[in-house]
Amino acid sequence: MSTAVSPLAPRRTPQMPAIAGVRIATAEAGIKYKGRTDLLAMVFDPGTTVAGVFTRSKCPSAPVDLCRQNLPRGSARALVVNSGNANAFTGMKGRETTGLTAKAAAAAAGCDDGEVFLASTGVIGEPLDAGRFTHLLADMVRDARPDRWNEAAKAIMTTDTFPKVATATVKLGDQTVTINGISKGAGMIAPDMATMLAFVATDAAIAAPVLQGLLSKGVGATFNAITVDSDTSTSDTLLMFATGAAAARGVAPITVASDPRLGAFRRALNRLLKALALQVVRDGEGARKLIEITVTGARSARSARKVAFSIANSPLVKTAIAGEDANWGRVVMAVGKAGEPADRDRLAIWFGNTRLAVAGARDPDYSETEASAYMKHDEVAIRADLGLGRGKATVWTCDLTKEYVAINGDYRS
Amino acid sequence: MSTAVSPLAPRRTPQMPAIAGVRIATAEAGIKYKGRTDLLAMVFDPGTTVAGVFTRSKCPSAPVDLCRQNLPRGSARALVVNSGNANAFTGMKGRETTGLTAKAAAAAAGCDDGEVFLASTGVIGEPLDAGRFTHLLADMVRDARPDRWNEAAKAIMTTDTFPKVATATVKLGDQTVTINGISKGAGMIAPDMATMLAFVATDAAIAAPVLQGLLSKGVGATFNAITVDSDTSTSDTLLMFATGAAAARGVAPITVASDPRLGAFRRALNRLLKALALQVVRDGEGARKLIEITVTGARSARSARKVAFSIANSPLVKTAIAGEDANWGRVVMAVGKAGEPADRDRLAIWFGNTRLAVAGARDPDYSETEASAYMKHDEVAIRADLGLGRGKATVWTCDLTKEYVAINGDYRS
Repeated sequence: MSTAVSPLAPRRTPQMPAIAGVRIATAEAGIKYKGRTDLLAMVFDPGTTVAGVFTRSKCPSAPVDLCRQNLPRGSARALVVNSGNANAFTGMKGRETTGLTAKAAAAAAGCDDGEVFLASTGVIGEPLDAGRFTHLLADMVRDARPDRWNEAAKAIMTTDTFPKVATATVKLGDQTVTINGISKGAGMIAPDMATMLAFVATDAAIAAPVLQGLLSKGVGATFNAITVDSDTSTSDTLLMFATGAAAARGVAPITVASDPRLGAFRRALNRLLKALALQVVRDGEGARKLIEITVTGARSARSARKVAFSIANSPLVKTAIAGEDANWGRVVMAVGKAGEPADRDRLAIWFGNTRLAVAGARDPDYSETEASAYMKHDEVAIRADLGLGRGKATVWTCDLTKEYVAINGDYRS
Repeated sequence: MSTAVSPLAPRRTPQMPAIAGVRIATAEAGIKYKGRTDLLAMVFDPGTTVAGVFTRSKCPSAPVDLCRQNLPRGSARALVVNSGNANAFTGMKGRETTGLTAKAAAAAAGCDDGEVFLASTGVIGEPLDAGRFTHLLADMVRDARPDRWNEAAKAIMTTDTFPKVATATVKLGDQTVTINGISKGAGMIAPDMATMLAFVATDAAIAAPVLQGLLSKGVGATFNAITVDSDTSTSDTLLMFATGAAAARGVAPITVASDPRLGAFRRALNRLLKALALQVVRDGEGARKLIEITVTGARSARSARKVAFSIANSPLVKTAIAGEDANWGRVVMAVGKAGEPADRDRLAIWFGNTRLAVAGARDPDYSETEASAYMKHDEVAIRADLGLGRGKATVWTCDLTKEYVAINGDYRS
């Protein structure tokens, strides 16, 4: 476990507002961690809709199975999240645990089992005993309060060094609604889904299919555009809830994707998803630098994205940046290995505003001093132009440091 | 640069025999390194055939371009290799350098430019001045001797901590022929091709198309089954030369792939390729453990191979092994993220002979003590059975240590 806060953490954590229709409680269940909260319950007012995006792992966790099963109904009344144990690769026992947890949460919230959503994060392969925490749920639901988003973000942390929150307000017609989100990383961060866990809620009333459309589209340039170590968790879960409480203030529900008010909402949501996703990268295990990689001039956006991830996941690129070395040769290598159309003699590479390579060779005008000075920054932008077409993509990652190895070399013990 | 020899290095280096028809010279050209050899010339008798396999990088080095251009002719008289500079991403200047080098080597060896093969390894993107070493070639060719295979292996090293050699004799009918090989790693080791450089020679007479068939097939379970860091070099080159000098002793040339004598030769060659490839993994940058990953029960061999590489390239699996942690949960994660058919509830995982997981959960009988003791070995074998079919693959990698990050964080400076 790391203790020091990431040097890339945001300077200040906003005090999160309430979302009408959402109440929150956290508890110390002692599942693995001692002296900190490790259990989160969110309770939603009747009528809350839900959308979700999950890991593409072929070996998903039991809670992911349960969420996928409940999602088509589109209705949510409770969310229960624990940290310390992922309830992944736990076989029949894992399914028993999610069943018992959903039942207990449903009883506490006075809803149907199918309106409960679950997420678990932590060690894989250890049975998670529902008896350790289900008895707490009734009190948690009873005592839940709207103003606990910051506490919620803390309860879901594992190797994270800071809680990740973001909030936004947006005009829906002439009325204002709020969107809140929390997320947690910090290893096994790669698409798709990129984060381990993220939860977003709004008081807007949005029909479940519309909400799902917003979320599925929104992850493309945000949570699915980040990578810490190319590893994909069995548990990655992003859920979004729309309580519809704003309807009481006269905000008409959004029932179709063509609603003209959705444009502003979509932009605000995407900004919020990006803010949460980048906080995950900023807290990548051992990370000391945030790296933004933009590929332009590819044959297609899909091709650009593949090249960008090839660069972002290259251990040699990531260690060079950790060493503050403007080693553009490794970027060439990573472009070349992506397997996408590329022509060495049209390739150009920038670190920040310094062009280091052009037309298949080192830029004759490039200043090593300038490039080296740039590499000392906390945030490094790399651009590779393939010179072939108009395809473009941006992804984010962090550097690969000795601390990453140290954190992951003795995580379980 | 690392200085200490890898703890996984073979206990002893064989004294390499001569290959009739091959003469070797090395020199200190001072291209980048001082006080060591960095230039290798091999001279082949007239009639030598050649086969090659190269990087699949879309941005290959200038020497790779030249080899690909000369390969169809199937005839080789000289090989020139330098270490310290890869002559990759060097644009027009890079092509000039390979042209001048081939010309100088051809003049020295008294052959055509098209019979010269080149390889360069080292930093990418720095122009390589042919004038630094072409003047040495005439003397090298004149003084070349057959008994310098061990010196040849040393001259091509970059971050390698030990020279990599292998030799074999094989009965071709009732006569014996010899195969020698040298290779070098040690970063950017991932298929396809896996090694940066490897050169193999035999005194057997084998027609170029037959030789190419042997080599292309032979790399599948050897050089293309290893990965150090998932990164693929711009310069990966494996060349094989058959001098045919054994024909003078009455060994009839092999002109067709159906020659019944080829079976034994193929087996010996594949063993030699595997020995060279595993030495590359054993010298992976910062490596302290050799990891053999076998996937069984996949839908197909191709699928098994993809899952095996997903495990082998996972930073979380590799750091766990560096930490001597039998963290099979990360193997589950890596199986899941491969995107290949897998069923959590049929998956079983072994570390050595200890089965840690079975039927979608931790093996109830597994001994943590036994598994932990096993992880202390220098060589660790992981097996994942997917329980779906008969597809099988084995790949090799090494652990990911802080030393890897240290070596690659300041390679260029």
